[in-house]
Amino acid sequence: MEKFNSSITYDQHLWEVDVQGSKAYSRGLQKAGILTKTEMDQILQGLDKVAEEWAQGTFKLSPNDEDIHTANERRLKELIGETAGKLHTGRSRNDQVVTDLRLWMRQNCSTLSALLRELIRTMVDRAEAERDILFPGYTHLQRAQPIRWSHWILSHAVALTRDSERLLEVQKRINVLPLGSGAIAGNPLGVDRELLRAELNFGAITLNSMDATSERDFVAEFLFWASLCMTHLSRMAEDLILYGTKEFNLVQLSDAYSTGSSLMPQKKNPDSLELIRSKAGRVFGRCAGLLMTLKGLPSTYNKDLQEDKEAVFEVSNTMSAVIQVATGVISTLQIHHENMARALSPDMLATDLAYYLVRKGVSVGQPGWRGEGTGMFLRLGVAVVMVRGEGRHPQQNRELRKPASALLSCRPHPQMPFRQAHEASGKAVFMAETKGVALNQLSLQELQTISPLFSGDVSHVWDYGHSVEQYAALGGTARSSVDWQIGQVRALLGAQQA
Amino acid sequence: MEKFNSSITYDQHLWEVDVQGSKAYSRGLQKAGILTKTEMDQILQGLDKVAEEWAQGTFKLSPNDEDIHTANERRLKELIGETAGKLHTGRSRNDQVVTDLRLWMRQNCSTLSALLRELIRTMVDRAEAERDILFPGYTHLQRAQPIRWSHWILSHAVALTRDSERLLEVQKRINVLPLGSGAIAGNPLGVDRELLRAELNFGAITLNSMDATSERDFVAEFLFWASLCMTHLSRMAEDLILYGTKEFNLVQLSDAYSTGSSLMPQKKNPDSLELIRSKAGRVFGRCAGLLMTLKGLPSTYNKDLQEDKEAVFEVSNTMSAVIQVATGVISTLQIHHENMARALSPDMLATDLAYYLVRKGVSVGQPGWRGEGTGMFLRLGVAVVMVRGEGRHPQQNRELRKPASALLSCRPHPQMPFRQAHEASGKAVFMAETKGVALNQLSLQELQTISPLFSGDVSHVWDYGHSVEQYAALGGTARSSVDWQIGQVRALLGAQQA
Amino acid sequence: MEKFNSSITYDQHLWEVDVQGSKAYSRGLQKAGILTKTEMDQILQGLDKVAEEWAQGTFKLSPNDEDIHTANERRLKELIGETAGKLHTGRSRNDQVVTDLRLWMRQNCSTLSALLRELIRTMVDRAEAERDILFPGYTHLQRAQPIRWSHWILSHAVALTRDSERLLEVQKRINVLPLGSGAIAGNPLGVDRELLRAELNFGAITLNSMDATSERDFVAEFLFWASLCMTHLSRMAEDLILYGTKEFNLVQLSDAYSTGSSLMPQKKNPDSLELIRSKAGRVFGRCAGLLMTLKGLPSTYNKDLQEDKEAVFEVSNTMSAVIQVATGVISTLQIHHENMARALSPDMLATDLAYYLVRKGVSVGQPGWRGEGTGMFLRLGVAVVMVRGEGRHPQQNRELRKPASALLSCRPHPQMPFRQAHEASGKAVFMAETKGVALNQLSLQELQTISPLFSGDVSHVWDYGHSVEQYAALGGTARSSVDWQIGQVRALLGAQQA
Amino acid sequence: MEKFNSSITYDQHLWEVDVQGSKAYSRGLQKAGILTKTEMDQILQGLDKVAEEWAQGTFKLSPNDEDIHTANERRLKELIGETAGKLHTGRSRNDQVVTDLRLWMRQNCSTLSALLRELIRTMVDRAEAERDILFPGYTHLQRAQPIRWSHWILSHAVALTRDSERLLEVQKRINVLPLGSGAIAGNPLGVDRELLRAELNFGAITLNSMDATSERDFVAEFLFWASLCMTHLSRMAEDLILYGTKEFNLVQLSDAYSTGSSLMPQKKNPDSLELIRSKAGRVFGRCAGLLMTLKGLPSTYNKDLQEDKEAVFEVSNTMSAVIQVATGVISTLQIHHENMARALSPDMLATDLAYYLVRKGVSVGQPGWRGEGTGMFLRLGVAVVMVRGEGRHPQQNRELRKPASALLSCRPHPQMPFRQAHEASGKAVFMAETKGVALNQLSLQELQTISPLFSGDVSHVWDYGHSVEQYAALGGTARSSVDWQIGQVRALLGAQQA
Repeated sequence: MEKFNSSITYDQHLWEVDVQGSKAYSRGLQKAGILTKTEMDQILQGLDKVAEEWAQGTFKLSPNDEDIHTANERRLKELIGETAGKLHTGRSRNDQVVTDLRLWMRQNCSTLSALLRELIRTMVDRAEAERDILFPGYTHLQRAQPIRWSHWILSHAVALTRDSERLLEVQKRINVLPLGSGAIAGNPLGVDRELLRAELNFGAITLNSMDATSERDFVAEFLFWASLCMTHLSRMAEDLILYGTKEFNLVQLSDAYSTGSSLMPQKKNPDSLELIRSKAGRVFGRCAGLLMTLKGLPSTYNKDLQEDKEAVFEVSNTMSAVIQVATGVISTLQIHHENMARALSPDMLATDLAYYLVRKGVSVGQPGWRGEGTGMFLRLGVAVVMVRGEGRHPQQNRELRKPASALLSCRPHPQMPFRQAHEASGKAVFMAETKGVALNQLSLQELQTISPLFSGDVSHVWDYGHSVEQYAALGGTARSSVDWQIGQVRALLGAQQA
Repeated sequence: MEKFNSSITYDQHLWEVDVQGSKAYSRGLQKAGILTKTEMDQILQGLDKVAEEWAQGTFKLSPNDEDIHTANERRLKELIGETAGKLHTGRSRNDQVVTDLRLWMRQNCSTLSALLRELIRTMVDRAEAERDILFPGYTHLQRAQPIRWSHWILSHAVALTRDSERLLEVQKRINVLPLGSGAIAGNPLGVDRELLRAELNFGAITLNSMDATSERDFVAEFLFWASLCMTHLSRMAEDLILYGTKEFNLVQLSDAYSTGSSLMPQKKNPDSLELIRSKAGRVFGRCAGLLMTLKGLPSTYNKDLQEDKEAVFEVSNTMSAVIQVATGVISTLQIHHENMARALSPDMLATDLAYYLVRKGVSVGQPGWRGEGTGMFLRLGVAVVMVRGEGRHPQQNRELRKPASALLSCRPHPQMPFRQAHEASGKAVFMAETKGVALNQLSLQELQTISPLFSGDVSHVWDYGHSVEQYAALGGTARSSVDWQIGQVRALLGAQQA
Repeated sequence: MEKFNSSITYDQHLWEVDVQGSKAYSRGLQKAGILTKTEMDQILQGLDKVAEEWAQGTFKLSPNDEDIHTANERRLKELIGETAGKLHTGRSRNDQVVTDLRLWMRQNCSTLSALLRELIRTMVDRAEAERDILFPGYTHLQRAQPIRWSHWILSHAVALTRDSERLLEVQKRINVLPLGSGAIAGNPLGVDRELLRAELNFGAITLNSMDATSERDFVAEFLFWASLCMTHLSRMAEDLILYGTKEFNLVQLSDAYSTGSSLMPQKKNPDSLELIRSKAGRVFGRCAGLLMTLKGLPSTYNKDLQEDKEAVFEVSNTMSAVIQVATGVISTLQIHHENMARALSPDMLATDLAYYLVRKGVSVGQPGWRGEGTGMFLRLGVAVVMVRGEGRHPQQNRELRKPASALLSCRPHPQMPFRQAHEASGKAVFMAETKGVALNQLSLQELQTISPLFSGDVSHVWDYGHSVEQYAALGGTARSSVDWQIGQVRALLGAQQA
Repeated sequence: MEKFNSSITYDQHLWEVDVQGSKAYSRGLQKAGILTKTEMDQILQGLDKVAEEWAQGTFKLSPNDEDIHTANERRLKELIGETAGKLHTGRSRNDQVVTDLRLWMRQNCSTLSALLRELIRTMVDRAEAERDILFPGYTHLQRAQPIRWSHWILSHAVALTRDSERLLEVQKRINVLPLGSGAIAGNPLGVDRELLRAELNFGAITLNSMDATSERDFVAEFLFWASLCMTHLSRMAEDLILYGTKEFNLVQLSDAYSTGSSLMPQKKNPDSLELIRSKAGRVFGRCAGLLMTLKGLPSTYNKDLQEDKEAVFEVSNTMSAVIQVATGVISTLQIHHENMARALSPDMLATDLAYYLVRKGVSVGQPGWRGEGTGMFLRLGVAVVMVRGEGRHPQQNRELRKPASALLSCRPHPQMPFRQAHEASGKAVFMAETKGVALNQLSLQELQTISPLFSGDVSHVWDYGHSVEQYAALGGTARSSVDWQIGQVRALLGAQQA
């Protein structure tokens, strides 16, 4: 039973913050008149000695030390005598332990924040360096549309910026001082909690002593933060595991993050990524466990709450390891440029073919097409031409040229709704499949049996580089938009660091 | 398989926001030159008609309507013809559905926020009205110390203010526009996402189209928000179920929130509270389910994400019901004043007895005991007396009086450390138990066998009203601190509402 | 990364079973002609030496030992030279580790089974010894009906017998041999898996090598078994925590299972029970974590599966500790007989009052009332009288006497349906409450204003001992039924042990 | 609050079993003398009428019908008058509802069992028909070794047989009768529970009335059964999604189980498989939710338990749909034979190359190599030759021939340990990679620089068909073993059906 009850095997992680908290509290006691200046100094020096022993690994646990608090106070008494017995006046383990835990987690969150920002920065740097590489974007794991490789990197980096933001919010709620709440009713010595707060550099003090000693929202929030962050990393890991298969063959893990097989000499397994993916389960399990423990618990402190610490320590360690490994994986990952290019296929442009039809015959002079100056513009297929006047069209990602005079008298075709264009493109896909040729191998004549809107300029559609540049609206995969994303994420990182 | 794939049975909840999103998107298309003004107007009017049919319950689903998006567009086409086919240009169900869901949840969060603040307000009002009622504070479900009934109410109200704060943060992240992200690569028509944002009144736009269409952080966060809020309510429910037993007999649920037994005529069961407690499981189950669904999912949209909506709808409904029932329970709850008073017993003052000893013999003239003016103070037992000079002591919750001249020459006892005082008080508890009397029935002589520091003024200890007033440090159960808490929570509510 | 990948810190728990598995495998290799008899003997002796080093704590890990398998083989090679390199022929870590884990868990399940049966036995012994003590049965935590204290104990013991049964089923599925499955495709040396099975005493062999190396059903089942068992223990702990409050005051934990407060000298906290309750969360968290890790994992071995072992070790330790503490708590628990008796109140007999009315006027001569002999019986209130003839009524828990001659001509009242009787009893409860008296203080006149069926024999209703004896149907709280339960549970324990 | 409390919206699913349970109970009441034969017949006929109304959809709910039990009894009273009020005598909603639920689930489990066996049968049939097709076996999603396609199918089928077995165990525990337990204390009318059991065809009766009315193990077990089954199906779905990508291109979903894209005309998405995968989360969420609801609940019935039914209904529906869709997917799946063959590559035989070395130089005359007759055998590379005497070697999957006389005097090479062979094969892999050739393109000279054991017969290694046939130990991928698996699974299905 003693072993069952004891927490010293794991809560000794708190030795440093426990000393820190006790030092602040002894200052509070002195101000409240419970300790004389001399006694306080004695206690402060004793606590420093205790800390030194821990730091140097010379602290010896005694069999009766059931938790870090009793261990430290027992040692303090050995060092300074009976005065040590004054330290706990008006304090309870209930407010002491939760103060310790908050101090520990505050520090830990700073560490995790920095590691996470480092991971994001690594990703953004890579996105910037490799933004001219195209490869297939997948939805439902089926090849969907050509995208920039950087767009993929950024999709995961952007997800992680939300984790980074959330961690700051969690840390804000961790950074609230419960000390001075006693066991349940508060502190009866008029201890100045504002002084304690300032000593320990907390952002605020808790409002209600019953709540302060028994709420573990900040733990649950932290565990959930980790769980959500891990689902992001598990999704990125899954992508990279797939991209690293012989079949996709788009990326290759560096040897440092791969492992061999005890049986099969040719194998190189993505163990690092699999471990990342797997930890999403473990971390969430801790979150689930704590919430179940909290469910239906009566008010105030119950021993059930002792479950909080192991969860925090384990998840903190896991997150630290996972984020660092992920950073290593990303920074050493090799990509196969040629395979990425080869993986693009004309059928991935079927949507563009539909857009080609949609764009045919846009009416002249719509408000959206008025640029700077006096120009009036006409969009013909993928090109935008100026019909009359002169000036600059506001959307720079489109080709702009003086129209041939013939164009001035052209009558736009009636505009095809996207639903019809989608259907027409689908017919082309089917025709190509039936004929056993690539979509871009259909002749103009063949295409025109599907729609008379097809003309020679349809050949422009089959350019992957051109395809991605269409997606210039913010958030898309055009180069300008990718650059914008990089700038946005960098700005976020800067703001979060501050 | 069709039934398995279809989502219309539940996503029709989105009819209103789907129309709203489509109206904004048609404005975007018009600005981008895809729609003429006339076409846009046609579509806008058509969509209004669609919405009207939903509102009046006359919208007829067809068997082919697999989701709300196809249903609405199908109906639009019936109403305005082929132009309807232009509405989906450059849009995908991937960005459409997540825009709809965010719009719906944004509205829903506002509703839940208001309900939650109403619950907190009800609690604070009650705390203010009943702050002079004392009853036992429990830790480990054992009677611990006397507290104010309001202190208990506030302990739960304060927990809920964190939920209220978190909900605003979640809502902030919900309030980000994904529309204009297409299926994966972005929007190829240069649609002005800033215009879409303004039309739909979002706070920001998403940064990356791949992430935008497939991240469900805001759903996971909402479900976790609800889970944590429910653990709070489950703990409050547990307390009230206990307090409402024949054995505790401190409170009584109003009949509207109790139910009889089909077998036992005398029973009145706290069904409302039990249901609140139980829903913590259901809500968390939804959170767990979604996270598991997300774990290891490849990038971008996969049909797995369709699991998000039922979870959101169910949890939203549950939260709305639970919060309203909780408000009803609290506002109609009857408390048994006499039983509360009767439940206080002298052994709950054992800690105060230890403090009595600690306070004995505080040295004269400690810095903490210097007040305004020239006075120098001496604490004797629970009383603080002025030794010389004149002025006001800074801690107003203590009795202050001119010392008898005898006191001027008193020599303070050596101060007893709390650990010894705790032990001495423990001996008194044991002595009382052994003698079969209440702790306050021990005679002074008997007490003095434990410590010579006990003197006649120990009788002051046995006053429950005096006991709670000691806890005047912020967050404690003294009246001044309870008033402070009420003010703090009121201020928070005001700030959150703004 | 190496630290992240390594599992030796925890999988060294497997040292013994790893040696065991390797010994069996070397026998298989010898039979398959891969090892000569001499080589096999060399390996067997070497492995025994390895085991000895572990047992004596002299085994030294090297920094390159990433798991227990490589550690043991490395050491074997140091001891016997190159022959050690033959041991892994045709084996993979994939089938090796899962064999080890199954061996470990099989042994562990036997231990847990024995501990669990010991707990149940302790409960049943107590139930038998204390079966004459009555106390309130609660539903919805409201006093419902008088029951035997033993009936409460048995309600928890019976739940645990299901856990005990399920554990045997889980163990049956653990007890299946995967060795000889290689990495994925099977064993290419024609190793005799039936020989391996017999050597290691498994019940069966796995059917498919891909499934065998990557399924963790037996782990998931074990974790769920533990989770469900813990919810049972959490419910029992909750009951005992409540019954041990000052308010209920029905039981008292022994000092060995209580803990004091660092602040409040009078407190005795039920820490043991709170820890039991809390562990339900932790254990379930492990189950949730593993399932999430397994979700959507591609076929066969992936490193994700490495998450299995820590979960198993932690949960096994927890279960072992929890069950032993629970046994200690139950066997040393003190019960307060007088308080149990005092806690019974007449309103708990309101249902019996309704039954009284229902029983009034049962028609003569119904088949159910025919006993042995020629007697014909009439039930009048709680008494059963013989109307004519002679013989024995089959239900022995009812009073049987020769009817007064007057009865022979009595005309039974029309029988009152239970719904009306329930309503009538409810009126009596209300009347008593209104008058401020106990239910059994209502006079016969008062009762008759509610129903004319009430007569003098209603006084029999107010006997708690009589009340419980009514519940003689199997599973009820009558003494005969409680005895039957004890017999049933004892028989189950016997069967399970066999 | 009424809406919050009411369960009729979902528990009306129980109408049929509620009637069934009430009919049995009225027979019990008649035997116990509470109902006359006439009354019982009246009730039975009334209940049949109630059932008829439900079956025909004419049953009209009234606003006061809070659950199915009150609805049915209310209607019964309308149909037959006051006698209806006798039906509930000695019964409580507590034992009634759990009886209903068990009846419903028992039937439902039979349905699910049949569906699951049908799925397994479909898989086994397919495995039998396609057992000559080879393709890559993957571990860590990296190509590992050639296996039979049927071996893959069977790996999932075998997993499902465990689900099928577990479902029968769960059903066995569902099939226990709680009726006759009343609200908490049991049944006071001596109702014959054995008769009730027989009437309702249950396998046993519950042992303790408190436990019987409040345990939901069978619900938790069912939800966990479903969760584990879903993780199996999620893993199979994941495999098939991967195998169906353009990159793997090994299988193709039939159109009935694919869906198109609203934006991309060329897309065919595996929605059916993604939905299967996703439901693992939802189903587990229900399991997690219920366990959390149960955690720490006080003994006996609490309203919290009302959460059980929606979970059961939803999960049952989901499982039924998922299993049927999976059956449809498997039975209509198209496989690409040529791509499967093409995906095999020589490096997947690196392990075989190591075995080649291991097998070289096996000593003559080892016991394991003694066959029938007087023959003494020698293994040389992959061939086994008879050295002297005559007879039949017991391992039929190896080539057997008379040795050339030269062999009779051969001295076997010293046998190479697997660890060295593994290393040598690794060197060959590296050499091939460095030279940019396939592993089987290395010349004999080149191989001999690695080990002198390589000789001309190494060419046998490069035959995929030969490779898989090595894995003839039970559970392996050799044809004989696959046939054995098919037989085993068929036998299991037969046994389970019986």
